[in-house]
Amino acid sequence: MNFPHEKIYRTEKDFLGEISILQDAYYGIHTQRAVENFSISNRSTNIHLIHAIVEVKKAATMAHLKLGSLSSDIGNAIIIACNEVLQGALSDQFILDPLQGGAGTSSHMNVNEVLTNRALELLGHEKGNYEVIHPLHHTNFSQSTNDVYPTALRIAAIRLLRPLSEACAELQNSLQLKENQYEHIIKLGRTQLMDALPMMAGQSFGAYAQAVARDRWRLYKVEERLRQINIGGTAIGTGMNASLKYIYTITDILQDTTKLGLARSEFPMDITQNMDVFVEVSGLLKSAATNLFKIASDLRLLNSGPKGGIGEITLPSVQIGSSIMSGKVNPVIAEMVCQMAMKVMANDYAITLAAMNGQLELNAFTPLIADTLLESLEMMTKAILLFKEKCIDHIEINEEVCKKHLSESCAIATALVYHIGHDCASQLVKKAQKEDKDITAVLKEEKLMSEEEIEKILNPYVITKPGIPGI
Amino acid sequence: MNFPHEKIYRTEKDFLGEISILQDAYYGIHTQRAVENFSISNRSTNIHLIHAIVEVKKAATMAHLKLGSLSSDIGNAIIIACNEVLQGALSDQFILDPLQGGAGTSSHMNVNEVLTNRALELLGHEKGNYEVIHPLHHTNFSQSTNDVYPTALRIAAIRLLRPLSEACAELQNSLQLKENQYEHIIKLGRTQLMDALPMMAGQSFGAYAQAVARDRWRLYKVEERLRQINIGGTAIGTGMNASLKYIYTITDILQDTTKLGLARSEFPMDITQNMDVFVEVSGLLKSAATNLFKIASDLRLLNSGPKGGIGEITLPSVQIGSSIMSGKVNPVIAEMVCQMAMKVMANDYAITLAAMNGQLELNAFTPLIADTLLESLEMMTKAILLFKEKCIDHIEINEEVCKKHLSESCAIATALVYHIGHDCASQLVKKAQKEDKDITAVLKEEKLMSEEEIEKILNPYVITKPGIPGI
Amino acid sequence: MNFPHEKIYRTEKDFLGEISILQDAYYGIHTQRAVENFSISNRSTNIHLIHAIVEVKKAATMAHLKLGSLSSDIGNAIIIACNEVLQGALSDQFILDPLQGGAGTSSHMNVNEVLTNRALELLGHEKGNYEVIHPLHHTNFSQSTNDVYPTALRIAAIRLLRPLSEACAELQNSLQLKENQYEHIIKLGRTQLMDALPMMAGQSFGAYAQAVARDRWRLYKVEERLRQINIGGTAIGTGMNASLKYIYTITDILQDTTKLGLARSEFPMDITQNMDVFVEVSGLLKSAATNLFKIASDLRLLNSGPKGGIGEITLPSVQIGSSIMSGKVNPVIAEMVCQMAMKVMANDYAITLAAMNGQLELNAFTPLIADTLLESLEMMTKAILLFKEKCIDHIEINEEVCKKHLSESCAIATALVYHIGHDCASQLVKKAQKEDKDITAVLKEEKLMSEEEIEKILNPYVITKPGIPGI
Amino acid sequence: MNFPHEKIYRTEKDFLGEISILQDAYYGIHTQRAVENFSISNRSTNIHLIHAIVEVKKAATMAHLKLGSLSSDIGNAIIIACNEVLQGALSDQFILDPLQGGAGTSSHMNVNEVLTNRALELLGHEKGNYEVIHPLHHTNFSQSTNDVYPTALRIAAIRLLRPLSEACAELQNSLQLKENQYEHIIKLGRTQLMDALPMMAGQSFGAYAQAVARDRWRLYKVEERLRQINIGGTAIGTGMNASLKYIYTITDILQDTTKLGLARSEFPMDITQNMDVFVEVSGLLKSAATNLFKIASDLRLLNSGPKGGIGEITLPSVQIGSSIMSGKVNPVIAEMVCQMAMKVMANDYAITLAAMNGQLELNAFTPLIADTLLESLEMMTKAILLFKEKCIDHIEINEEVCKKHLSESCAIATALVYHIGHDCASQLVKKAQKEDKDITAVLKEEKLMSEEEIEKILNPYVITKPGIPGI
Repeated sequence: MNFPHEKIYRTEKDFLGEISILQDAYYGIHTQRAVENFSISNRSTNIHLIHAIVEVKKAATMAHLKLGSLSSDIGNAIIIACNEVLQGALSDQFILDPLQGGAGTSSHMNVNEVLTNRALELLGHEKGNYEVIHPLHHTNFSQSTNDVYPTALRIAAIRLLRPLSEACAELQNSLQLKENQYEHIIKLGRTQLMDALPMMAGQSFGAYAQAVARDRWRLYKVEERLRQINIGGTAIGTGMNASLKYIYTITDILQDTTKLGLARSEFPMDITQNMDVFVEVSGLLKSAATNLFKIASDLRLLNSGPKGGIGEITLPSVQIGSSIMSGKVNPVIAEMVCQMAMKVMANDYAITLAAMNGQLELNAFTPLIADTLLESLEMMTKAILLFKEKCIDHIEINEEVCKKHLSESCAIATALVYHIGHDCASQLVKKAQKEDKDITAVLKEEKLMSEEEIEKILNPYVITKPGIPGI
Repeated sequence: MNFPHEKIYRTEKDFLGEISILQDAYYGIHTQRAVENFSISNRSTNIHLIHAIVEVKKAATMAHLKLGSLSSDIGNAIIIACNEVLQGALSDQFILDPLQGGAGTSSHMNVNEVLTNRALELLGHEKGNYEVIHPLHHTNFSQSTNDVYPTALRIAAIRLLRPLSEACAELQNSLQLKENQYEHIIKLGRTQLMDALPMMAGQSFGAYAQAVARDRWRLYKVEERLRQINIGGTAIGTGMNASLKYIYTITDILQDTTKLGLARSEFPMDITQNMDVFVEVSGLLKSAATNLFKIASDLRLLNSGPKGGIGEITLPSVQIGSSIMSGKVNPVIAEMVCQMAMKVMANDYAITLAAMNGQLELNAFTPLIADTLLESLEMMTKAILLFKEKCIDHIEINEEVCKKHLSESCAIATALVYHIGHDCASQLVKKAQKEDKDITAVLKEEKLMSEEEIEKILNPYVITKPGIPGI
Repeated sequence: MNFPHEKIYRTEKDFLGEISILQDAYYGIHTQRAVENFSISNRSTNIHLIHAIVEVKKAATMAHLKLGSLSSDIGNAIIIACNEVLQGALSDQFILDPLQGGAGTSSHMNVNEVLTNRALELLGHEKGNYEVIHPLHHTNFSQSTNDVYPTALRIAAIRLLRPLSEACAELQNSLQLKENQYEHIIKLGRTQLMDALPMMAGQSFGAYAQAVARDRWRLYKVEERLRQINIGGTAIGTGMNASLKYIYTITDILQDTTKLGLARSEFPMDITQNMDVFVEVSGLLKSAATNLFKIASDLRLLNSGPKGGIGEITLPSVQIGSSIMSGKVNPVIAEMVCQMAMKVMANDYAITLAAMNGQLELNAFTPLIADTLLESLEMMTKAILLFKEKCIDHIEINEEVCKKHLSESCAIATALVYHIGHDCASQLVKKAQKEDKDITAVLKEEKLMSEEEIEKILNPYVITKPGIPGI
Repeated sequence: MNFPHEKIYRTEKDFLGEISILQDAYYGIHTQRAVENFSISNRSTNIHLIHAIVEVKKAATMAHLKLGSLSSDIGNAIIIACNEVLQGALSDQFILDPLQGGAGTSSHMNVNEVLTNRALELLGHEKGNYEVIHPLHHTNFSQSTNDVYPTALRIAAIRLLRPLSEACAELQNSLQLKENQYEHIIKLGRTQLMDALPMMAGQSFGAYAQAVARDRWRLYKVEERLRQINIGGTAIGTGMNASLKYIYTITDILQDTTKLGLARSEFPMDITQNMDVFVEVSGLLKSAATNLFKIASDLRLLNSGPKGGIGEITLPSVQIGSSIMSGKVNPVIAEMVCQMAMKVMANDYAITLAAMNGQLELNAFTPLIADTLLESLEMMTKAILLFKEKCIDHIEINEEVCKKHLSESCAIATALVYHIGHDCASQLVKKAQKEDKDITAVLKEEKLMSEEEIEKILNPYVITKPGIPGI
């Protein structure tokens, strides 16, 4: 923090003492102390979380206005301040480190202070004139960090889950288009990286699409679990300082304003202290991450070469690959997807650690959960869309290479097992590999069956479908 | 492996050469080679997985019998062998390391060989006489490790999921009994380990019960996802060497014999290569583990003492705590639960690593997934039941300690905020703490309100419910 | 990216085609493409890494000037550009996402382009006039991302390791001051959270100091391993396009300019592809994180209360704790330290995943390693210093509470074991706890020994030292 | 546990009550209770840990004999019992679950009871006759789980670290033999799986050997840190009930009997509660695991095929690969190594979780640390030796394939950059790839340089060494 001497300050006070705040600042004493306590990561609290906190505070204010427990001029000024922030104003005032101690109290107070000072300003008062509007008595009326923050985190998470689920749908769609586009190209299937059996190139994309479809479904369904909110539970879930009327009203208002299907938890004390729902959501992000890593890794493998690798597909060229090597193009989008996936897995670890270490009526490490979960949600959405647009949509199959690998391999030999036995078929494969011949040639040499039979049994297209070839 | 010289051996052969096998052994050449290749962990493959593989092989044999593609004497002998193994026989013959390479082929072949040799024996033949019954042509007819193993793993996982879900239900029930038992005892709620607000002792257990109820629900529901099987897909999911009739028949038979609601995947190639479903299941085990760790840790904290800790509850004494200290009893069941939870989290890590590293048409690391997932399922079920029976059911609340902590704290002071403001209430608390008085005494000293008001506002029982005290 | 219509653009070209770049931008076509390919995390590449890349490029340019392989006007202009950037200029030009694909090529090209365009400007040319100075032929002469980036990452890591090791030293020192300050206050030691034996309050801090001292030593020693650099190895470690003279010269220059004790690897191909050193360093950060988490958690536990917890210490009040509860102060600095520790553990997971997934002659995921490792190093340093200054240095012991806990407990009863046996001593403890008496009173009641003996044996100060009390 | 009715029982008693024990059992009441409390994993405590505990108890007994504080007949009987167990006797008596609660007290008591009952038997007494020899007063004299267990864990860890470090040395040696064997075979180097630059086949193995050499060195050096022991610190590190003479004597004796260079910690309270040293050791195992995973994955990749993959090397055939596909051989040893590596990483996670969750004067989760750390050490040693013997030693390079990949690729084109510029060289590569020609042919077509120059510049053998080709 840099306070040039010519700047003007105001003084704010709490029960620990007084402190100077830049007169221009909309935040107040709590935020100022927290800046000094927590600046470790060079980052600030996720703006989606800040906005969701503002949404909750707006609903609380609307509830008090409706119940007549807040004067209309104060309440309306706070609501205007909320609307401004939700439209993007004052975003430079939310300055606190995401890994702050205090279970989110500091970012919550940051919001309380900014809204209060903006509301004061709107009513023609000086910032800091908390006798008119008080960050705690008015902006925070009937609220506690411990119900506002978990509720806001759910709202922010749902808002980010939906585009993620849609991004999965778009990726799934692209993969299925590729499945159709390449359904007639035959190629070699591989298990444990070794030549296995023939398959159609489109099937690869179909298998990926299935996995992504499961992810989409999971991410769509898990939203349900996030909808239970503890607003009104206040500090420990008992609802102290929040009237039943207020609790019902704010829940109704939040349902209206967010349109997210939120529902009041029957047992808010549970939601206040237990973070398993975030572990569940993050666990599903991790499932999606394993699929995305696997798909991106497969594409890198199939694209390897162009001459010294598998080279059965070509990924689009999106940038030059090397600062030294000529003409090199790398699978950079797939590599980015892999890194995103690994980062999401690491974030899941952080979320698990934070969730398990809650104690008694609260989890003090909710800020770590919020920071990593929202990061994972945003990052995965963006990476999936880039993956689709800049990679999947433009993949080309190199049909000639596919055919060559299949025909040179002994992949079709398994079709012989039913007819000549496993041991005998294996001996033929061994011979073919040793003498670098194809399996048909060896079979003919060995005169184990007629040419007609061979043709009937060793038809690779037949082998890509269920059934015992030759029967 | 210890082969005393007087033992008798038979010789078996594959396309890599010949090998000696103990004549008594039911396993054969593949198993013998695998023992020498993979013995690293001092453990053998999970018997639940072995049995599930046997279930699949039995169904395959039944299918071939029904379709007339296997002679009835051979088929029946294999089925008898299967039944014997499923009843616990020959369990010492499944000797392979769970971390084997080969995507499970070795444990699968171990089963093929044991069933074959037992079937041979049943028909009066020598073990190893594979011209009569062949481990691959008969016992493995139309099957591949790559469809048998994932199908078996799903069967084994569902079989272990159900008792786990039931164990969660039992734990939930016990917690709710405690919730009821202690609903009238008032105590101090804590956030961030600091004195917060009054609550009822039963509510703690209620909050735990809610979390466990979610776990139970998740574990119950996720079974659905495990029901999709790829049997009939054979090596890469295309169904090569498995007729459509066989595929439908074996699926029907497995539905009948297992009664697990299994369904044929529409896209077996997906199930063969993608392991995200196990990541999903393990992710839910991890969610449950975070809840169990949190509950067990809370209990350890509340039980701490007896004199130098919080001491609000007493966990049952199940064993002596120390080899040196007199009269010490430790919360050993809760500690075991914590360690189980951490192990389940570590297993989830292993499963994630294995799942993300699948390549193309197969995941070579399915054995690691199987080993860790089944371990987590079994271990968690046993630990939950012990937790319930030897800990939760016998927890006692120390009512006097609860009351003392509450009355000495300033937890009720928050009820004053609405009446005298946050700053003023905080100053009173600060004064009370400094002078080691209770908040009521300070309030009276300061003469901020009448004794009647004080009594009305500072009623801790009222404070445990929603509403603004004193209004 | 927002390009208002009135802005002026230049055109740049690579072998994939042409692209428009803002005329004001110092970065060029590669950076522009990479922005569009990789923007997923809302963050940009760590500035310490950018600066370290600039240091390497400056050394390369100096080497070529010395060897006469670069014209002095071009070389000098590049060096001036390097110096400017190292002093903080143009930091807004390094705009690429840290999780970029391409093994770091994009951030490396970002640096090449910015330095080149600034050098062009210094010589009076237009930005983009690469015929005069070329980002690859001049600024990148004899260099590859694959030797520049790992070398720069080592430089950045060492530069951040040193203040971390010093921060550990400061923390250790503070802990030892507390050890001395409280060496005469007796208190209750606890194992498994249960009352155990008497100890001196200072000893707690001494034990923490020992652990931190080990961390400091490890972090100090591991620097050695980071000093081996592969600069001159170019693309795969063979040194292609880098003369031996150049390799020796740039290494000497880097030793001089960085003063970090860097040494040329004997086998640069190893350093290019193997990332185990970063796993090692991160593993040590993780060891330190476990110690810091444990210390911070202990302090939170000992500070718990003030009335309903252990309350043997008081952590300094650095900010108000609650937006609803009166007078609440939370252990927020310790909570921040815990969150930092968990984040470092999660980063270690990311680093491990990235390192294990290198392939053949390169690890494509070095950007993920760089981003998370440097984050951990910076974040831990800052958190430790805040922990020391805002928490450890101001801890106060509540001597009365310590004494009360000790005297009420049966911790001294173990001193009886030698004299009356383990079973008998345990029975006395059981009786004392049941009847809520102290152990001395029970002992007197039971008349098992004289008062003199009791006094001699049950002296808690004696019990805090080696030896069998009463002998 | 199976107690047939005809079996004879004895009764044992502790301050919680009486219990029946099989008369044949050498373990006693504590073990019996613990079996009922902790059976969750189907496994028993690591025998290396049990033996190390016995080594410590033997040393304690020897110390007391030397100091005259234990009668020689009792002491000698205990020592004989220790020697018998160390030679392998009674190993079926150590039956407790490794994930036991109680910080290891139960396995420690299991040892105390077995040694005591065996000693009683040796002296002609009945098992359970603890008035003659008492598990606590004699076998455990001056000892606590909290000093015995961490000391034993260090002993067991060092004993397993040494063969691991030697296994690394053997692996390194094998890799270097391959480096020499293949130093003259030229091949294609790849970055990001794409064709990069020429290199010598031996260099791949050399790079692996370097990484393994670092692992060996780290594992060799870290032993130092394990040598500090807290024996004599008893329950919390203060040395209560252990005389200074005893502490010095047992340390001397342990140094003699173990020959492991053990040293008394200056601050035993630190060693009792802080587990960072095990996190450090496990972190180094994780570093080694990343290297092993990377090497094994590279080998799987280079061995892929035989026709549809890279196929530049052939791994030895150690078993049949498939139950369905003919002639298939899989890289099963490399796959096992990968799984071992992932398991070691997961174990590191468990160790980290356990270590961070220590509280105050003890870490209750030491049993989880012991179980996973010792498993990792043993498993990695065995896997490395199998990797060496059954894989690395028998790798063959397919020289023709290597040459083909190199000559078909444009890998040598980078040698042109100095002479014709990066853009021009890239255009040539693009053309060559598009027209499926080799780079030399395109270069000749374009007539950019003479044939002599081409030959001089594009010599792949020159390109594998430092320097600018053609100068």
